Amino acid sequence: MELTLAAVTALDAADPLAALREHFHLPDDLIYLDGNSLGPPPKATVTRLAQVVEREWGAGLVRSWNSAGWIDLPRRVGDKIAQLIGAPPGTVIVADSTSVNLFKVLAAALRLRPERRVIVSERDNFPTDLYMAQGLIDLLGGQHELRLVDTAEAIPAALAADTAVLLLTEVNYRTGRLHDMAALTAQTHACGALTIWDLAHSAGALPVDLTAAQADFAVGCGYKYLNGGPGAPAFVYVAPHHQADFRQPLAGWMGHAQPFAFDWRYEPAPGVARYLCGTQPVLSMSALECGVDLLLACDLHTVRAKSLAMTELFIALVESLCPELRLATPRAPNARGSQVSFQHPQGYPIMQALIARGVIGDFRAPDILRFGFTPLYLRYVDVWHAAQQLAAVLTDSEWQRPEFSQRAKVT
Amino acid sequence: MELTLAAVTALDAADPLAALREHFHLPDDLIYLDGNSLGPPPKATVTRLAQVVEREWGAGLVRSWNSAGWIDLPRRVGDKIAQLIGAPPGTVIVADSTSVNLFKVLAAALRLRPERRVIVSERDNFPTDLYMAQGLIDLLGGQHELRLVDTAEAIPAALAADTAVLLLTEVNYRTGRLHDMAALTAQTHACGALTIWDLAHSAGALPVDLTAAQADFAVGCGYKYLNGGPGAPAFVYVAPHHQADFRQPLAGWMGHAQPFAFDWRYEPAPGVARYLCGTQPVLSMSALECGVDLLLACDLHTVRAKSLAMTELFIALVESLCPELRLATPRAPNARGSQVSFQHPQGYPIMQALIARGVIGDFRAPDILRFGFTPLYLRYVDVWHAAQQLAAVLTDSEWQRPEFSQRAKVT
Repeated sequence: MELTLAAVTALDAADPLAALREHFHLPDDLIYLDGNSLGPPPKATVTRLAQVVEREWGAGLVRSWNSAGWIDLPRRVGDKIAQLIGAPPGTVIVADSTSVNLFKVLAAALRLRPERRVIVSERDNFPTDLYMAQGLIDLLGGQHELRLVDTAEAIPAALAADTAVLLLTEVNYRTGRLHDMAALTAQTHACGALTIWDLAHSAGALPVDLTAAQADFAVGCGYKYLNGGPGAPAFVYVAPHHQADFRQPLAGWMGHAQPFAFDWRYEPAPGVARYLCGTQPVLSMSALECGVDLLLACDLHTVRAKSLAMTELFIALVESLCPELRLATPRAPNARGSQVSFQHPQGYPIMQALIARGVIGDFRAPDILRFGFTPLYLRYVDVWHAAQQLAAVLTDSEWQRPEFSQRAKVT
Repeated sequence: MELTLAAVTALDAADPLAALREHFHLPDDLIYLDGNSLGPPPKATVTRLAQVVEREWGAGLVRSWNSAGWIDLPRRVGDKIAQLIGAPPGTVIVADSTSVNLFKVLAAALRLRPERRVIVSERDNFPTDLYMAQGLIDLLGGQHELRLVDTAEAIPAALAADTAVLLLTEVNYRTGRLHDMAALTAQTHACGALTIWDLAHSAGALPVDLTAAQADFAVGCGYKYLNGGPGAPAFVYVAPHHQADFRQPLAGWMGHAQPFAFDWRYEPAPGVARYLCGTQPVLSMSALECGVDLLLACDLHTVRAKSLAMTELFIALVESLCPELRLATPRAPNARGSQVSFQHPQGYPIMQALIARGVIGDFRAPDILRFGFTPLYLRYVDVWHAAQQLAAVLTDSEWQRPEFSQRAKVT
């Protein structure tokens, strides 16, 4: 396509998802390219939360565990997320954080492969996934090995007869590189190991089909593309054929076969509930449900098509306007998630200067400028203007102003 | 005192905490004696949540991790709860669920006593505490023993040279019995073991002094006496002298020394932050802060005095009106938490009939009718009327109506 504002405006006019933007609270004076870190609030969330607090919690009080269905929330929202990731009903539950859920499935997976001692992952996987593996290995006495590869291409060669688990994030948080889940899962199974997929940057961003890929386990995040709110509860998936053998160490009462029998002996619930541990945060989970509901109204293939069109457009614009930036995201559309990353040694102050101009992306150490493209509420003109602002920050060396180098706690 | 409505009304007129009731959303048509299961919403919570969603999440978006201080919430609210439980600043953090936090401290405690293999607890401890211990023991290969005693009096004799940890809930969830934390901690230390105290039914209900008791670890719940909302995040305490050696297996990125350096190697944060795992639910945590703030405005000794006066009154009224009920709660005030429990073989339908009359308590299997007395929003006249309604349910055998035997999911 022609890189003109008129051409870009025409894309918005033809966008089948354009009407969805109205369902979000978004400030008028900024372009938000950080929905891959924290999605914005759906307008329905504000109304829903007031209802949960005043009507369910306030008027219903403790009775709402039954009457408002709070007790079923982890499963109900889980079944909704299941539809976004190609999982059958009764295989996904919403609970805890991604990190805690990863601990559950990693411990369960190692138990299913007791004779194998290696967890294969990428050194560039999101750190918490690697930290949780290290924490579990340490707890188990250091008999297991976390085998990290330095490039995605090296993964198949790292899988061996000693491998228990392949632990990967489908879309890399830094580069936006998208793994071939089906192919890697097949290679993992061929060597007798199991897969755990972290869908933090996939769920709600692109069509995921855990069933078709024959994935064993998955975890994912509620506050990015699912627009569930800051620190929203996470989710966990267990393939149907592992459910009966799924035994996880965070054996809390909500995962018990009969939590309200108050027996002192732990007995896991027969189905999906055994992934649960303690009581879940109802307010945050109710907010997450609003975000998920908006996605259920979309066709994820349409979302994916717009996402790729936007990332293509952004790459083309930035490469023409900002030659000093180096593309870190794969150029092939089928190897890309819903983000575009560029590298620059001064990435941090450049991003701060861009944010000061009202374009919000984020920085990932050591040198990544990261931009998330979320088709539910972004317009093609936003992509256009974001690239112009980025060019202005670089052209004027605006980013060299001292205030842009001051580090914040959260970058 | 005289058991007359006039005498009871006079108590309300002289109650120094009476004005606090106005700070809560409470339906006019019921008496809520279940704040020990789920506290009601403070009025401030409704306003605060709307502000968090619209201003912080909506307008601030991802920037609010810094600008609205979301990143500091676990520590900020933790320091506030610390004031309620006799803990110094920087020793308490709010995160996850009580169950998950128990896993953290139990694993850390066992690591500090590697040569010892026994966890002592009560068979009547809240089941999730026992389940989490079983899950951890199972994960560690079954080399540890959960030694359960059947009476509180048997605890000291169960502590031995093989004991690593004494794991107790200070106030029993069924009977309301209050342990002597200082004495039991001293006995535990005398045998070389460590203590973990679950404060689910203590924090905000009565003065707790972890420092004076020399407790090693504690966990607790946000949704009972702290009025933090359904499934509110929980808290965890680590004594200052254990902090440097505190190593927990749920080694998520929020507990890392430099989470935003994104290094692949886990290195625990130097202080209290190392108890953290994943990203925390900001909406639920903001609600919890409102509940905690209300308690900080009170003197917990005044709260305790009113609590004991209310439980004394309820015991006296029910024993005079309902001879078929048997008191399960200790009669000695200093051995009682902030609840009163009675036993009856038909406890379940009796409680359902009472709820239908607008008095909400709860049932705990197999035969416990449980009533929580929460001085911040209950009046002495509520205690009076609750006892009258309970008597009516029993006198008329109203509870025998078939609808009251239908079991709900959550009892």
